[in-house]
Amino acid sequence: MPDPLSYIDRESERFREELFEFLRIPSISARSEHDADTRRAAEWLLTHLRNAGVDAALAETPRHPAVIARWTDAPHAPTVLVYGHYDVQPAEPLDEWSSAPFEPEVRDGRIRARGAADDKSQVFLQVKALEALLATRGTLPLNVTLVLEGEEEIGSPDLVPLIQARRHELAADHVVISDSMMFGPGQPSLIFAMRGLAYFELDAEIGSHDLHSGQYGGAVANPANALAAVIASMHDAVGHVAVPGFYDDVAPVDDTLRARFRALPFDDAAYQRSAGGAEPVGEAGYTTVERLWTRPTLDVNGLVSGYTGEGAKTVLPARARAKLSCRLVAGQDPARVGERLRAHVERVTPPGVRITVRQIQAARPWRSNTDNALYRAAGAALEQTFGVPPVLAAHGGTLPIAPEFEDVLNANVVVMGFALPGANMHAPDEWFPEAHVGLGMKAMVRLYEQLGGQAPS
Amino acid sequence: MPDPLSYIDRESERFREELFEFLRIPSISARSEHDADTRRAAEWLLTHLRNAGVDAALAETPRHPAVIARWTDAPHAPTVLVYGHYDVQPAEPLDEWSSAPFEPEVRDGRIRARGAADDKSQVFLQVKALEALLATRGTLPLNVTLVLEGEEEIGSPDLVPLIQARRHELAADHVVISDSMMFGPGQPSLIFAMRGLAYFELDAEIGSHDLHSGQYGGAVANPANALAAVIASMHDAVGHVAVPGFYDDVAPVDDTLRARFRALPFDDAAYQRSAGGAEPVGEAGYTTVERLWTRPTLDVNGLVSGYTGEGAKTVLPARARAKLSCRLVAGQDPARVGERLRAHVERVTPPGVRITVRQIQAARPWRSNTDNALYRAAGAALEQTFGVPPVLAAHGGTLPIAPEFEDVLNANVVVMGFALPGANMHAPDEWFPEAHVGLGMKAMVRLYEQLGGQAPS
Repeated sequence: MPDPLSYIDRESERFREELFEFLRIPSISARSEHDADTRRAAEWLLTHLRNAGVDAALAETPRHPAVIARWTDAPHAPTVLVYGHYDVQPAEPLDEWSSAPFEPEVRDGRIRARGAADDKSQVFLQVKALEALLATRGTLPLNVTLVLEGEEEIGSPDLVPLIQARRHELAADHVVISDSMMFGPGQPSLIFAMRGLAYFELDAEIGSHDLHSGQYGGAVANPANALAAVIASMHDAVGHVAVPGFYDDVAPVDDTLRARFRALPFDDAAYQRSAGGAEPVGEAGYTTVERLWTRPTLDVNGLVSGYTGEGAKTVLPARARAKLSCRLVAGQDPARVGERLRAHVERVTPPGVRITVRQIQAARPWRSNTDNALYRAAGAALEQTFGVPPVLAAHGGTLPIAPEFEDVLNANVVVMGFALPGANMHAPDEWFPEAHVGLGMKAMVRLYEQLGGQAPS
Repeated sequence: MPDPLSYIDRESERFREELFEFLRIPSISARSEHDADTRRAAEWLLTHLRNAGVDAALAETPRHPAVIARWTDAPHAPTVLVYGHYDVQPAEPLDEWSSAPFEPEVRDGRIRARGAADDKSQVFLQVKALEALLATRGTLPLNVTLVLEGEEEIGSPDLVPLIQARRHELAADHVVISDSMMFGPGQPSLIFAMRGLAYFELDAEIGSHDLHSGQYGGAVANPANALAAVIASMHDAVGHVAVPGFYDDVAPVDDTLRARFRALPFDDAAYQRSAGGAEPVGEAGYTTVERLWTRPTLDVNGLVSGYTGEGAKTVLPARARAKLSCRLVAGQDPARVGERLRAHVERVTPPGVRITVRQIQAARPWRSNTDNALYRAAGAALEQTFGVPPVLAAHGGTLPIAPEFEDVLNANVVVMGFALPGANMHAPDEWFPEAHVGLGMKAMVRLYEQLGGQAPS
């Protein structure tokens, strides 16, 4: 009987075909017209988990079901819960993709598709790591629960209630969140902190209908100019957020950690390339790594007002809308940030305009203790697989579920993933390194063996 | 043989049917898919002018033809040139119309259609005033030229070259621009000044593609935040335009005129109703009338960036665009304003963002001397028709052609129109008072008789 690592190598072609099948399902959770596709992706996982020998079932929610899989035949071993998500972001703007977003292909060693990095390949390798162990050993070295949700890209509205309701069934010692990237090529990482999110819609209005800019210009407020002024008032000249109280709750970053972050071999040039040429700039007094990992932000995500078609239309718009969100760091609370933003907008709204602020998404930031068995086992597994110890890193993105797992299950939580920087998550031409599908499976096999107290394969 | 005024009353029903036929043609000059409709509107005018007994022909341009009509059998009388336009604005947003924009109907005495006020009813009444005179008198009291263009709503790009090329044929003593509104119901007006226009597109960009706001937020510039800051920097806290040099060339308004403007019975409440409830506010130190008639503006006409659909998408957009325009007053030059705006944008653009400024439309402001035969004749004609002397007024909108006629033909120019405030020009539910179709014809008949030295009808 082969060992699980050889099995992973041997089955790699079938794995690729299966992953492509999974990537072809446009499971866009934000779009109701794709609800059936989203369910189809959940059912695809169910089939593959059951075929691997793991109990699996859908946990229904008001929106998209979660897939919950359990293997519990190691009564004296610890329990690991692995989290991932099978839903994906919308693919727009479609005309900026080099290949069709739901027709995966490999080019230059990269699997290119919407969801390739975020998070389908990573969910897939979790399922197949279990298959590799069960197919070769007939058992697992510890108890494993998979929670694979279908609502991460819409802010995980139903996952916390689900975890709370099933907290006894989902009880675990360790949680691995499988939805992230490595620090760089050949540089695996363990992520112990992620930013939170507070997302808002600001609607500015002066009246019921658009006006002629000649007959009204100068004599009524302009909601687009007003909204621009309000947005501009939210930053000072050196990139600090200027909403009063915004930084009050930010937990300090100790000097040791700060020094370690500053010493990391972060490649600004590669980062700029991955950003489509966008120059690394930001809040004064911080490095790029610090800005991403330790500093909160306030970014416009969308703007729309008046006439946006071809040519000149001399309209004075009745309305303007901004979508705007803050990434938050340890200590900040999305609801309190929302209150402060609302108060600020109220204070700076110019006369003649009404601006409403609606908070449409909220997720807490997360920062974990790293001195525990999970971080040690994960560190060893990554070192065995990639030949170097992992970078202990933070991440600028948001995983709403990280602090929830920590609190509700009282478990250690680590974020450990295999995508690479510049993966174009949430953007056209999203990709995942083909080689990391198998390497990720192997790292998971080793992590299970370490945590289960077995000699590594 | 009846007199022209009785003829106008007698034929009013036919006139309404004909006007409706004209309004049904969607002559949207800005949209190439409506080019055939735009030409159809020109040909409609040609037919009606010829049937009235006036020579008429199309003057072709690279875009939409102008209709030029001439009656020149009064060798010892002066010549009046009347200008109007048969093209209309796009009708969007369609879902805010109470009736179909190109299916005219009368409700509460108002003809409702795209182009009802701006400018088809007013072009129509010019054509039919000539018909009324020729059908009843067999002659006109003076020489008349009509220039009816099809490109006013796209900034009249071909009209000035046309007038310059044909300046001998179009030679006139007086020019009546028939594309405006009265000061209020029962308050006709003669307009002697209009604002100019400088229209810009501002494009902000950081890189080639949209980014994930978690992986890049805080570490690259945000083009939408940057564009908001640039737009916000263009006004100070009390509504003055803060682009350096913006007001340098503004010609002063003398105290007498200013006092007369301030004394006008301007109805702020009615104005607010006409603006869909938008509160009259603006630059500190000026009344609403002054803001509209004597002060330049800087208004956003359109904004677009990032994700504008339903829900939350955590995108950091690669690009943001603003359409932005300035209404200009006597003394200002659109090209110089453009230079100053460009220099300002360059100065205030934050690091990490490129912003380009493209001027896509330009029209000079206009202010005329009012002490001449044209203003006296027009004043008398309006007083005879409406029972009160007209208000000597300015206007916040732009007629690019007013200063051109004055300069190229060396003629007196007056703007005299019959729409009413709140006509929703350039907006949904545009309307024109049904009674003013006939009253406008009568006023024109009387103006011609006055200027031709004949006793009024």
